Amino acid sequence: MAENQEVLVQKIKEQGDLVRKLKAAKESNEKIQEEVAKLLALKNQISPEDAAPQKFTLKTPKGTKDYNPQQMTIRNNVLQKITEVFKKHGAECIDTPVFELKEVLTGKYGEDSKLIYDLKDQGGEILSLRYDLTVPLARYLAMSKINTLKRYHIAKVYRRDNPAMTRGRYREFYQCDFDIAGQYDLMVPDAECLKVVTEILDAIEIGPYVLKVNHRRLLDGMFEACGVSAANFRATCSTVDKLDKLTWEEVRTEMINEKGISPEAADRIGKYVRLNGGSELADKLLKDEQLSKIKAAIEGLEGIKLLLNYCELFGIEDKILFDLSLARGLDYYTGVIYEAVLSEPIKIGNEFQTVGSIAGGGRYDNLVGMFDSKNKQVPCVGVSVGVERIFSVLEAKLEAGEMKVRTNEVEVYVASAQKNFLEERMKICTELWNAGIKTEHSYKKNPKMLTQLQHCEENGIPLAVVLGESELKRGMVKVRNISTRKEDEVSRDKLVDELRTRLAALNVNVNGHAA
Amino acid sequence: MAENQEVLVQKIKEQGDLVRKLKAAKESNEKIQEEVAKLLALKNQISPEDAAPQKFTLKTPKGTKDYNPQQMTIRNNVLQKITEVFKKHGAECIDTPVFELKEVLTGKYGEDSKLIYDLKDQGGEILSLRYDLTVPLARYLAMSKINTLKRYHIAKVYRRDNPAMTRGRYREFYQCDFDIAGQYDLMVPDAECLKVVTEILDAIEIGPYVLKVNHRRLLDGMFEACGVSAANFRATCSTVDKLDKLTWEEVRTEMINEKGISPEAADRIGKYVRLNGGSELADKLLKDEQLSKIKAAIEGLEGIKLLLNYCELFGIEDKILFDLSLARGLDYYTGVIYEAVLSEPIKIGNEFQTVGSIAGGGRYDNLVGMFDSKNKQVPCVGVSVGVERIFSVLEAKLEAGEMKVRTNEVEVYVASAQKNFLEERMKICTELWNAGIKTEHSYKKNPKMLTQLQHCEENGIPLAVVLGESELKRGMVKVRNISTRKEDEVSRDKLVDELRTRLAALNVNVNGHAA
Repeated sequence: MAENQEVLVQKIKEQGDLVRKLKAAKESNEKIQEEVAKLLALKNQISPEDAAPQKFTLKTPKGTKDYNPQQMTIRNNVLQKITEVFKKHGAECIDTPVFELKEVLTGKYGEDSKLIYDLKDQGGEILSLRYDLTVPLARYLAMSKINTLKRYHIAKVYRRDNPAMTRGRYREFYQCDFDIAGQYDLMVPDAECLKVVTEILDAIEIGPYVLKVNHRRLLDGMFEACGVSAANFRATCSTVDKLDKLTWEEVRTEMINEKGISPEAADRIGKYVRLNGGSELADKLLKDEQLSKIKAAIEGLEGIKLLLNYCELFGIEDKILFDLSLARGLDYYTGVIYEAVLSEPIKIGNEFQTVGSIAGGGRYDNLVGMFDSKNKQVPCVGVSVGVERIFSVLEAKLEAGEMKVRTNEVEVYVASAQKNFLEERMKICTELWNAGIKTEHSYKKNPKMLTQLQHCEENGIPLAVVLGESELKRGMVKVRNISTRKEDEVSRDKLVDELRTRLAALNVNVNGHAA
Repeated sequence: MAENQEVLVQKIKEQGDLVRKLKAAKESNEKIQEEVAKLLALKNQISPEDAAPQKFTLKTPKGTKDYNPQQMTIRNNVLQKITEVFKKHGAECIDTPVFELKEVLTGKYGEDSKLIYDLKDQGGEILSLRYDLTVPLARYLAMSKINTLKRYHIAKVYRRDNPAMTRGRYREFYQCDFDIAGQYDLMVPDAECLKVVTEILDAIEIGPYVLKVNHRRLLDGMFEACGVSAANFRATCSTVDKLDKLTWEEVRTEMINEKGISPEAADRIGKYVRLNGGSELADKLLKDEQLSKIKAAIEGLEGIKLLLNYCELFGIEDKILFDLSLARGLDYYTGVIYEAVLSEPIKIGNEFQTVGSIAGGGRYDNLVGMFDSKNKQVPCVGVSVGVERIFSVLEAKLEAGEMKVRTNEVEVYVASAQKNFLEERMKICTELWNAGIKTEHSYKKNPKMLTQLQHCEENGIPLAVVLGESELKRGMVKVRNISTRKEDEVSRDKLVDELRTRLAALNVNVNGHAA
């Protein structure tokens, strides 16, 4: 809207107010018509484009959404629980910019690179929105020359994917990442990442789940054993990764037609990727005629055995499944890979849906070196929790009425029983705010008593201070318990102490958690 | 890096490991040379581009930065305090996407529109990064058809400005916004926004500050009184807004040369914008020969008087200054405007710097209507706290050693005094984690005792559990107080309870706050 149009809109508003005032005051028709004519004249000055201020569909960008206060309360509670687990394991927090130099992201994501959001070249650097939090971490480690770090990072990432929003798949979504960087002993930090995932999934009570694990070196060894050329390992890997969405037949066809794998090699791969189990499977494969000849396969299998042993010490062995079909799409993994999958479909809206992967990660020992001019490596392992699907499940519960949340934490509402108490309300609010009590009052000069009490009930506010003329004259106010509707007189001078005592006794749930 | 190159890098790594192993084992020179030759042959296969994996300067985009764990601890503490104030006033939390349809932002920011970041057109919608949190709020209210909302929103916004990063001016920065939407009585919510700002600035102990207030209607009335045409109000306003950076002479020149204001009108404006004071100034101006004839000016002055009265009831009148030079650059304000400015220069690094505005806001009654097809208005007032400058001040204190932060919250470190206790450490960590105790241990199989204790001291970890062979045989472990260095034997079975008691007695500061 042009600047003078803005002023015009203001004048139209004023003229409209005047007309309404004249009508309310039942002024003469002549007088009213005169002002209405002025109003119409003003409206005619508005250019046609400005007359319809909203010319485009009002929406958020494709694949994104707003979070209303109820959704935010759920989201903040989940993120809080996740943060607590990260801190329990001694992680520190870092943050990186939402965009990176485009070159930082180039060549890190394999086939998924096409999903990266680029910024427009407005003169200056060529930038892209971050696609995950792992590559920015590697860039940060290389740039800061840090060799050891246990960090968490909770932030939004961006992917130009085809959104399936009801299932919690978005183009803008939160990732909650926990990573351990440093030269340590085999599988020790790797196993702790799995422990962290189980603690998180248990804390948010999402239902039964399985943590699938596999090893990139075993996959490489398996591909080698099946006759795939080394140059084709990663491409084959990203095809195997589709096994959670496609049938084996479809994956086989893609391997043969798109990745140039021979039908015989594909069939050999097919035999392996159907296998899953525990330590005994690793033992069996170590004796496999083909695999036992290949160094990478042995390294992967020995790694898996050690990982499963540590998982047993962590008491999470019943949640882990060694699964040869797990491949993970991203290029940068070099060792163990893992993925958490819910065991049961989840009710969202009226239907049960398979939610799929809700956490994933693995070891990436060569990523930091890609940012270092001397190719200096910092070995890393980490896990990323995809909380949007968890939010979707909880939001569905909220909508179904299976769950309640309080979206504010107000402890005391200051109400007036008669007119003209605005200034007195303001003084009392000031006292309570300055005493650290969460307080609100009506922003209307003379609100209705019923409206004020309804506000308390709807918002779960436990106490109200009610101002009345006769009490105030005696230096008293009423304190009302909203749920019991019981009212007592309290001395105005002792109000803060009295409220503190009552709030403590009520054990007010001030964290906005489920009632 | 090409996919086969990735495999090659892995092979080079393996071959390098082999060479090192042979050297360590003091194998024959002949044998070693043979493997070194293989290594060089592998390295030769790497294409020249891949041999130097890092071809661009490793940096974050211009005007942005990473936050390391110390900076994050400071930032999270400040944001926590701000959130507490917002919640104390009963605000609910919302979130919106980081980008909006470009059309949503068009025509809202006046001259500053050129600073908006656009996304590249990759087929699909035309998007821009959000420039503030106010326009997304207005879009949200219009889209959700919400008439009343008291919300806070803490998120990053993006401006292609010329960054002055040492002063806390960035292209990506946090805003902490508090807004009240709804049809309420004059100045009641407006005054509460000012109260909220004072509570925040007091809570973060940033030093003395002034809250400048003015009124857009008074500015309009003043311009009218000085002979500026209505079409020129907003442009004149954004020139007056530069008075905090430019001298009056420079502002006067811009008005005359760029905004087409006559020298006489500019001089008349100059007389007014030098005025500041309290209620008495508003009273004086209500009697001003020119202003008293103009409806908008009277409306603005009456508003300021009422606002100052409410500020007195809130006990913040000594922090408020009615200042006619305050204009605010943004187009959308329609009523009261305000800005918080630190009174004293702040020491950042080795020099004292004028930090300038650290919070600002005002009333914008017409913004929501711009998104509604029927131009339905939702009056709003709000304030935005610019925390980056606050972070800069605190980070400077940290660097100067005037402040300490703990970047993790670990309560107990599980150490081993001899070799081969990795599995036992893992079992004990599991017990402690499952009991909710924040615990870590070394990721090395056989870490040195000194290294483990140093880690505890450097990271402020209060207690260590020390495993030794002789104690474990008797079913005991040692618990060490890191700061006193006192060690006691504790029964392995009662470890969790014992640690809980000791942590409670130590009153461990687990919030990562300043020591």
